[in-house]
Amino acid sequence: MSTTTTTMKAVHYEKPFEVSVKEVPAPRIQHPDDAIIKVTTAAICGSDLHMYQGRTAAESGLIFGHENMGIVDEVGSGVTLLKKGDRVVMPFNVADGRCLNCEEGRTAFCTGVNPGFAGGAYGYVAMGPYAGGQAQYVRVPFADFNALVLPPGTAHENSFALLADIFPTGWHGVSLSNFSPGESIAVFGAGPVGLMAAYSASLRGASRIFVVDKVPERLAAAKKIRGATPIDFSAGDAVEAIIKENGGKMVDRSVDAVGYQAVGSGKGEGEVPNVVLEQCIMVTRPTGGIGVPGLYVPADPGAPDEKAAKGMMMMSFGKLFEKGLTIGTGQCNVKKYNRYLRDMIISGQADPSFVVSHEIDIDEAPNAYKKFDQRIEGYTKVLIHPNGSLHG
Amino acid sequence: MSTTTTTMKAVHYEKPFEVSVKEVPAPRIQHPDDAIIKVTTAAICGSDLHMYQGRTAAESGLIFGHENMGIVDEVGSGVTLLKKGDRVVMPFNVADGRCLNCEEGRTAFCTGVNPGFAGGAYGYVAMGPYAGGQAQYVRVPFADFNALVLPPGTAHENSFALLADIFPTGWHGVSLSNFSPGESIAVFGAGPVGLMAAYSASLRGASRIFVVDKVPERLAAAKKIRGATPIDFSAGDAVEAIIKENGGKMVDRSVDAVGYQAVGSGKGEGEVPNVVLEQCIMVTRPTGGIGVPGLYVPADPGAPDEKAAKGMMMMSFGKLFEKGLTIGTGQCNVKKYNRYLRDMIISGQADPSFVVSHEIDIDEAPNAYKKFDQRIEGYTKVLIHPNGSLHG
Amino acid sequence: MSTTTTTMKAVHYEKPFEVSVKEVPAPRIQHPDDAIIKVTTAAICGSDLHMYQGRTAAESGLIFGHENMGIVDEVGSGVTLLKKGDRVVMPFNVADGRCLNCEEGRTAFCTGVNPGFAGGAYGYVAMGPYAGGQAQYVRVPFADFNALVLPPGTAHENSFALLADIFPTGWHGVSLSNFSPGESIAVFGAGPVGLMAAYSASLRGASRIFVVDKVPERLAAAKKIRGATPIDFSAGDAVEAIIKENGGKMVDRSVDAVGYQAVGSGKGEGEVPNVVLEQCIMVTRPTGGIGVPGLYVPADPGAPDEKAAKGMMMMSFGKLFEKGLTIGTGQCNVKKYNRYLRDMIISGQADPSFVVSHEIDIDEAPNAYKKFDQRIEGYTKVLIHPNGSLHG
Amino acid sequence: MSTTTTTMKAVHYEKPFEVSVKEVPAPRIQHPDDAIIKVTTAAICGSDLHMYQGRTAAESGLIFGHENMGIVDEVGSGVTLLKKGDRVVMPFNVADGRCLNCEEGRTAFCTGVNPGFAGGAYGYVAMGPYAGGQAQYVRVPFADFNALVLPPGTAHENSFALLADIFPTGWHGVSLSNFSPGESIAVFGAGPVGLMAAYSASLRGASRIFVVDKVPERLAAAKKIRGATPIDFSAGDAVEAIIKENGGKMVDRSVDAVGYQAVGSGKGEGEVPNVVLEQCIMVTRPTGGIGVPGLYVPADPGAPDEKAAKGMMMMSFGKLFEKGLTIGTGQCNVKKYNRYLRDMIISGQADPSFVVSHEIDIDEAPNAYKKFDQRIEGYTKVLIHPNGSLHG
Repeated sequence: MSTTTTTMKAVHYEKPFEVSVKEVPAPRIQHPDDAIIKVTTAAICGSDLHMYQGRTAAESGLIFGHENMGIVDEVGSGVTLLKKGDRVVMPFNVADGRCLNCEEGRTAFCTGVNPGFAGGAYGYVAMGPYAGGQAQYVRVPFADFNALVLPPGTAHENSFALLADIFPTGWHGVSLSNFSPGESIAVFGAGPVGLMAAYSASLRGASRIFVVDKVPERLAAAKKIRGATPIDFSAGDAVEAIIKENGGKMVDRSVDAVGYQAVGSGKGEGEVPNVVLEQCIMVTRPTGGIGVPGLYVPADPGAPDEKAAKGMMMMSFGKLFEKGLTIGTGQCNVKKYNRYLRDMIISGQADPSFVVSHEIDIDEAPNAYKKFDQRIEGYTKVLIHPNGSLHG
Repeated sequence: MSTTTTTMKAVHYEKPFEVSVKEVPAPRIQHPDDAIIKVTTAAICGSDLHMYQGRTAAESGLIFGHENMGIVDEVGSGVTLLKKGDRVVMPFNVADGRCLNCEEGRTAFCTGVNPGFAGGAYGYVAMGPYAGGQAQYVRVPFADFNALVLPPGTAHENSFALLADIFPTGWHGVSLSNFSPGESIAVFGAGPVGLMAAYSASLRGASRIFVVDKVPERLAAAKKIRGATPIDFSAGDAVEAIIKENGGKMVDRSVDAVGYQAVGSGKGEGEVPNVVLEQCIMVTRPTGGIGVPGLYVPADPGAPDEKAAKGMMMMSFGKLFEKGLTIGTGQCNVKKYNRYLRDMIISGQADPSFVVSHEIDIDEAPNAYKKFDQRIEGYTKVLIHPNGSLHG
Repeated sequence: MSTTTTTMKAVHYEKPFEVSVKEVPAPRIQHPDDAIIKVTTAAICGSDLHMYQGRTAAESGLIFGHENMGIVDEVGSGVTLLKKGDRVVMPFNVADGRCLNCEEGRTAFCTGVNPGFAGGAYGYVAMGPYAGGQAQYVRVPFADFNALVLPPGTAHENSFALLADIFPTGWHGVSLSNFSPGESIAVFGAGPVGLMAAYSASLRGASRIFVVDKVPERLAAAKKIRGATPIDFSAGDAVEAIIKENGGKMVDRSVDAVGYQAVGSGKGEGEVPNVVLEQCIMVTRPTGGIGVPGLYVPADPGAPDEKAAKGMMMMSFGKLFEKGLTIGTGQCNVKKYNRYLRDMIISGQADPSFVVSHEIDIDEAPNAYKKFDQRIEGYTKVLIHPNGSLHG
Repeated sequence: MSTTTTTMKAVHYEKPFEVSVKEVPAPRIQHPDDAIIKVTTAAICGSDLHMYQGRTAAESGLIFGHENMGIVDEVGSGVTLLKKGDRVVMPFNVADGRCLNCEEGRTAFCTGVNPGFAGGAYGYVAMGPYAGGQAQYVRVPFADFNALVLPPGTAHENSFALLADIFPTGWHGVSLSNFSPGESIAVFGAGPVGLMAAYSASLRGASRIFVVDKVPERLAAAKKIRGATPIDFSAGDAVEAIIKENGGKMVDRSVDAVGYQAVGSGKGEGEVPNVVLEQCIMVTRPTGGIGVPGLYVPADPGAPDEKAAKGMMMMSFGKLFEKGLTIGTGQCNVKKYNRYLRDMIISGQADPSFVVSHEIDIDEAPNAYKKFDQRIEGYTKVLIHPNGSLHG
């Protein structure tokens, strides 16, 4: 932060279904390893909607935003790699780089940034005291560890912004399934993470990719991915459809990119928390693997039943065992992948920006949240440019 | 089979809680890749009790026995490695060595030996048309692939017999948890498989091993394993006890060596199918892993409730996801480990025979089944010598 | 082999620089696990030239051909999966599927098919008594293990033929370097194997691929691969050129697809056996990896010096250690990859047939060997159709 | 460093074959992430002798010591995990925890602590500006990342001191060979690192361990390791002896714990840099692996010939390729293992202190260097206690 800047605009949570843009004090260096970043792009994530809908313990005043990139404005005295002017993208995870989990690459489970819990993030309830980046500036702790340097300029801005969360998270989902090249894979959910999982599978040499959803726009987006076959679960049983399309065989791997707010396929059917996991168990071949990047929570006040409220659900564990399946779960360790995905973007091998639907100024954020929540006018992946458009 | 032998003794299932020893036709070569083995030792397995208790679809006449070793008596014209007189132990899995799963080392899920199913075994309901080895002779299909050659003689007979199933199965359970040396591990269940899992963890360099059971003899057996701490779950919450013993920390890995017939810790409490898995989820540190060699089945007519009858059960999946845990499941691919475990036995680095409680003649089998089922007189791991004692 | 066929045409080695097509007895079932294949396509491999040039101990009369595909004509009594009429492609490795190496997926090092040696192949000196497939029929031992079933018909014939050797071998080279997606890689040699390595890296998500050669046609072929940059080593130091193109950085991985007959870059310079390996050491970043699918031999009568004749050469091992590099070597275990690559061809994700330069009738083989050896008229990858053209 | 301490004793390099103990300024915090450690134990390493013998570019005045442990005396303002009074052991590698290599666990190749080179260390020529710890105090950069916390007190001091280098380095050597439990392994060299490699193999479940040396005391030490067989290479060809002892079979893995100063087996034969690597190639079974923790350098002024002076040597690469062997090399990434080895020491599963031969006061260091260099009076692994004996 330039020393002359003392206030800035930021997106605040007010109450369920309402955010506002307000002027607040700009962040300052608090620790020698901190840096202040002037935000060029901050994305709105589907997981922001959990808070927006009032389905969490988020309190009024929280600044949203965990998908952030920008320009280094100031560095603390302990920072050794970053320097003012560097263009950077921050993993959504805040991590200290010096605990066991960080040292072994599991930065989503850092034990040093959020006392009593394994994992921290920007702008998210219960993920530590880190203001979000849907603002003109954001403070980055352990900045050398938590900022990935990008080529200078403005090229690939939209693709690079997706390195904060959804591109690595989709890639991680594929890894959690123990996928290897040449295998077939089914991805449940064609939201931004599901699309990134399918796209990752394509980049990594999947032989067949099936993408399950019921929203026509999402199925159309899936179709753009090389080697992907969209499966509309509102048109019939997804498991049967996949096996039929796959020549009568189950798939090698499956990815649950939906999570606990899964809905049933029946008309007017509401949330059925276990529906996707059960389909993963059924559609995956014996000795295959299931990756679960989609969010499941240990406590959900808005759950459809008492067990689900405790994060519990029915699973066909006998079938899972009979098949000898593996399950991998959890938040993405963004740093494990982001350098490589950055390099693929730079060389032109990858361009994930096809999922971006809107680019807006920060003042338009309240309206964008509303439309994204209602899933109207094609709002799927929105990028905020808090310091003005990059396109001139 | 010697050409002059035409009948033999074998252990037959008669009806729930009754087996008999009867004279039946000796097996013959049916396919060029077959071999006939004269059985020196065949173990009774805990999983034989599922059939013995009438809790499966096993029909009268089935010859039991999937833990078999002996001497090659005759080989088919396609056999290239084995020869008459070789001492061998057979993995409990029957596998063809030429399907995708076999080729990639997942021999427990062979698709070529049991039409419509991935996996075959000797003497077991629904596992294919392969007579068991609790008999004087047993036919081994694809014999070069399904028999491991041992040093000639009778040394290490009891340890080698355990290579057919429980030593590799315990080792596999540790592998399913993604264990690496220096980590801590909790093993639930101190029956033969649980003891072998704990013993394997010790051989592989675990820093701390906790073994949970409530049977005093089993807890005493666990104590013999280098580095193992017995945990009596009837004396209090096992999860709390382990964390306390482990210096306030959760363990890196856990192994469910119990399966679907788990019982609750309360007095007089019956089967609680999910109790062990739930404890594994609670006791394992974030980013750790759970291995499940204990049997879960997709259909259980004797289950305590309707869901369990379909192999379904409640799981704290939200907590599992929050911790980013992995789960590995399934029957053991014995061939993946048996050569290495054999070599450890030969060199003296491993001696798993401490779990053997009784050695008997085949005529004593009906009595041994009864006592083993009632868990009396210390019957835990019984070895049958169908062609007479090896000790003279 | 149809029971009425008793003779067939086959390509025979006569003497250095001469092969002939002669009528010989057709192969017959010798063992219950054998099958006889009517060959539709057999490729000529660069390694056939070692024998053709008289630089091996190959004797007159040897039938060439280790890249074979065709239709099952007859199966032995022990064969359980294949049946007459199946379309199949055979890995160049002959393997028994029942030794330790086969069981663990290292079929190029089978200890059961070539007494005293680890590894067997068709039509190759010192690789066992297996006649080659540049003939109308070929006998396949352990046929269920050594034949991969393909979809019926004639689609993808050229791509499928490359599954016998060069597509998996190129893929293997990438694996030997410990490559993971998003990394950069340099491939030395743009012959068929080098091109397949570069193509494999592209399919598996390499961020940058550099392909080094000096033959214009080969460099042009490399350019067709998505993400690949050709490097002409006759135009200057290849290591410097790669580092410059890669933004001043060394690459993560390198692949030696040349082997012991490497030539120096100087004008008129002859064979310099260690030139490519030294360049791999220099161009690979600290902690990176080197994969060596290119052939090195322990004895070479035609070597430029006495040490090379024993397969020895100078290596900058001090630099290798300082960088902490890994080296992986050896013949390709084709079965580890061929199912997956087949599925990628079927689904359209991969099409390696772009390397095929000529398709010929068996009678044209002597002429094709001559031109391929002289590297004239664009002869790079020649496919023989011993039973006539598939295109009508 | 207590604020009142301004000078301290330290071991200085004077000139070839001479070190002295002198009073010098005590270190001070230079960067917010630094800590000052009061040294309780610092070991003398075999690699210190390279400098002592004048065979490097080390200059007069260098403070030796890269195997250091002690008590935190002062921390910088950026340190978040360590606090004054913590007992710690430092990996010999100095690493920043924020470069690609550190993030992926390859801390021996940190690119942020030694400009222009991948890797840093304390008290070592060309490894960066970090004073050694054979002194009363040592400055630790990036202290949270570079210090492992130990239980308070003085228990296990000798074993913990070995966590700085040789125990992890031996363990790493085993890992570099791609060892897995149950395999056989040959370790060349029974110096401290070789003994630790053999001990690690034993802890990790090796079936057979062969340890090659010619010094009787070292062979005797090897014999103490469970499952290890000493091989005296002065008594005959080591490769033949190992294969004979191993039942006629080559071993699965081999470890070169000797490095470039290897000596031939002939009487009076001097250094033969490639002798150990050649033996590794010969003694390892096809498809096995070779781990090289022993030091090889890219420039050696004292080398026996011109090529060796450039770190080049003859290798039987043709044989290596024919066998399909892998080679892994490089300095140990201590942090990858030290937490786990610490936990094994605490629980009693491991006790590597058996290799310690002497414990001395810092004033005895010059004498100890002399005797260690001459390998007399059993000087093999010497621990210095620069602030006085811990034993009272």
